[in-house]
Amino acid sequence: MTSATAIAGAVRRGEVTAGEVLARTLARIAAGNDTLNAFTAVTAARARAQAGAIDRRIAAGDDPGPLAGVPFAVKNLFDVAGLVTTAGSLINRDNNPAAGDAVLVRRLEAAGAVLVGSLHMGEYAYDFTGENVHDGPCRNPRDPTRMTGGSSSGAGAAVGGGLVPIALGSDTNGSIRVPASLCGVFGLKPTYGRLPRTGTYPFCDSLDHVGPLAATVEDLARTYDTLQGFDSGDPACARRGLAPTLPTLADGLHGLRVARAGGFFGAEDYPLARAAVERVCVALGAAREEPLPGAAAGRAAAYLVTNAEGAALHHIHLRQRAKDFDPDTRDRFLAGALLPADWYLRAQAARRAWRAEMAAVFRHTDLLVAPCTPCAAPPLGTRYLDLAGRRELLRPNLGLFTQPFSCIGLPALSVPLWLPGETLPIGVQLVAAPWREDLCLRAGEVLARSGVAEARPGVV
Amino acid sequence: MTSATAIAGAVRRGEVTAGEVLARTLARIAAGNDTLNAFTAVTAARARAQAGAIDRRIAAGDDPGPLAGVPFAVKNLFDVAGLVTTAGSLINRDNNPAAGDAVLVRRLEAAGAVLVGSLHMGEYAYDFTGENVHDGPCRNPRDPTRMTGGSSSGAGAAVGGGLVPIALGSDTNGSIRVPASLCGVFGLKPTYGRLPRTGTYPFCDSLDHVGPLAATVEDLARTYDTLQGFDSGDPACARRGLAPTLPTLADGLHGLRVARAGGFFGAEDYPLARAAVERVCVALGAAREEPLPGAAAGRAAAYLVTNAEGAALHHIHLRQRAKDFDPDTRDRFLAGALLPADWYLRAQAARRAWRAEMAAVFRHTDLLVAPCTPCAAPPLGTRYLDLAGRRELLRPNLGLFTQPFSCIGLPALSVPLWLPGETLPIGVQLVAAPWREDLCLRAGEVLARSGVAEARPGVV
Repeated sequence: MTSATAIAGAVRRGEVTAGEVLARTLARIAAGNDTLNAFTAVTAARARAQAGAIDRRIAAGDDPGPLAGVPFAVKNLFDVAGLVTTAGSLINRDNNPAAGDAVLVRRLEAAGAVLVGSLHMGEYAYDFTGENVHDGPCRNPRDPTRMTGGSSSGAGAAVGGGLVPIALGSDTNGSIRVPASLCGVFGLKPTYGRLPRTGTYPFCDSLDHVGPLAATVEDLARTYDTLQGFDSGDPACARRGLAPTLPTLADGLHGLRVARAGGFFGAEDYPLARAAVERVCVALGAAREEPLPGAAAGRAAAYLVTNAEGAALHHIHLRQRAKDFDPDTRDRFLAGALLPADWYLRAQAARRAWRAEMAAVFRHTDLLVAPCTPCAAPPLGTRYLDLAGRRELLRPNLGLFTQPFSCIGLPALSVPLWLPGETLPIGVQLVAAPWREDLCLRAGEVLARSGVAEARPGVV
Repeated sequence: MTSATAIAGAVRRGEVTAGEVLARTLARIAAGNDTLNAFTAVTAARARAQAGAIDRRIAAGDDPGPLAGVPFAVKNLFDVAGLVTTAGSLINRDNNPAAGDAVLVRRLEAAGAVLVGSLHMGEYAYDFTGENVHDGPCRNPRDPTRMTGGSSSGAGAAVGGGLVPIALGSDTNGSIRVPASLCGVFGLKPTYGRLPRTGTYPFCDSLDHVGPLAATVEDLARTYDTLQGFDSGDPACARRGLAPTLPTLADGLHGLRVARAGGFFGAEDYPLARAAVERVCVALGAAREEPLPGAAAGRAAAYLVTNAEGAALHHIHLRQRAKDFDPDTRDRFLAGALLPADWYLRAQAARRAWRAEMAAVFRHTDLLVAPCTPCAAPPLGTRYLDLAGRRELLRPNLGLFTQPFSCIGLPALSVPLWLPGETLPIGVQLVAAPWREDLCLRAGEVLARSGVAEARPGVV
């Protein structure tokens, strides 16, 4: 598997055609997807047309863009013209096919990238496992008997399995970072409002983010830079200038005040997660620890807000088509439909307090290091997690450490580590102040260059 | 009773001292308050100090401000240094006295006005009647056996009774406009975010407004202009420049596109309200009617949002001190504590839709004329209202016509009419697009000059 950066360079230099890259990619998908179940649709005809157009532009001496010929795929909550946007559900299959593409799909294609298909996801994105009763489970490329994590399960598996170098996912409570952690790839959840969600199926408006997954930090930064920019179709999208990260990627750590996230993020009960954080902290020189006392309340707030807003979104279908939901999703939505408004409002108050607490932390800290998932990929079918000595449901708790940050819209990068003796990767989060994705990516690149963080794409 | 404008003019010209004005005001309060129960505290010592300071400045040739010597009073949810901010409750009486004054109190005093006391209100502002089990009912100056309306009951009674020319109230769902209507005075609920609420006891953050009541449009405009300006203590307060209305007051109607609010606001079942609207429409040349199909949903949304957010605010006391609430208030808060989050979220969605609908209306309309209350002041103790043929609770339904506008933060002026043969006044609302209080006041002045709208302050 070659990186997006290498592919684009070779295509632009005429060393390989976009058509040849695509043919190899489709062959890899054909060979690997039976095992991984990462793709729910392959858009071969569209991809061939786009690759052909790129190659004609190259032949004509045009610049086909910084991602020329790079194959990519998108979580199936992104609109792709002609495909039904299922969002992992059965119910949405009754909808008409999308008339157009999501804005981020258009932006990647405008940069020369080649859409090859839509990717598996947990139903309506309310999932951290990658198990989907309608589509079957998505399977971990490091061990197909294990989970990918969710809800951007297919994105984690497709990049982790080396089927595509880059993919788009969404992250409401950790849905980019959890599969990045479990599948061993890099995943960036940008600041809330940075990337437009126009043309994606929603989950919880005030928490929904979209973003890329990739096998290298450079690919991630290049993709993220291509995705940036205001779009009026998403009322939450900020009117900010572009903030390219690629030019700053090699700036290293100098001047960065890095701290370890303590307290709630201490991960005393999760030795692998703790060891991974330890290793990153050593590599980044993070000696100081921030206690972050509001994190547990922030996580609970994200949990309740999601539960209530998700249930409200699906209210009619919960009444009329309850049996058509994935039972695991339905049970959570039904619980959300029964939440008192009082809990929801107190959750919003806790969220505001947690946001204020973190704003104060970022006055003297540039980057926080935190665990991403409490464990590496669990076996498929695992229902419970030993959570600080208590037996807790796995599905809602894999996002334990990701939820507090998405709750308040902070940019967070998950970087993959393979600890000595381990066959499974685990992610570590690098978290910055709003709009400072560049700091997450710079530190990620430091870890990549030193070999501390690394994706090992391919199906084992 | 003399207008604020006349008092300030006379004081500034040295024709009367602020001390003399104050003495007459305190005598009027002493004579009238036993009947009206409008004041819950009279701040005579503070008032004498302020009046003395004004008089010394006059004597020294200084300009003491545009409201020099004008007595005013504030609903007892405004902080007044040294007084406990009871917000009409028993529970808040356990709090410490306020350490400072609400920002709007400071602004009026800085303009030379003289605070003479705090005013009766419905408990925690959740009231449209002016009946308060802790303080006894506030009484209507036109007929003390009748309600003042609420929750700015004391403000309506004190201005309507001629005890003070101007007062400050708050309006979450109609709490300035309803007592203005029932007590026969002018009341302005400015645009949401226009006036800072810093130093006031909250009810429902996204719906709470503060504003003035007065016996003339000119007094109202002068007071409102003095109150304007950003304050960082209220996160909802907009950073906007001052928009003085007094200079535009006499501009008349020319160019104003005035329409009658139809549909929900048709008031077919309320002959007095309907006749009052009719008279205003004739005077303002409002021939066209806007159907406003989203109004009922907007009103329901305001109702549910208030119910849920109010209950969340008082959650701890509902659990620990339920017996210390006014039973009428407690029952409503308890209902709010039991609302499903799903209802709350659907209410917020309806609110957004109603806001968008009204934004479209204001693209071709400058001012809407709508009823303010369904009826004139009911007798104290009235529990039920005949609402379109159905027997409904009076308390929550007096705000039937005010709630839809505060729900989306539109500026609204209530103007008082005395219809032929009627001994009781009734208000009519003039409603404009956000930030266009000037249009409400201009049209109000047209009605005042033509004698259509008029306050008749004094205790009958």
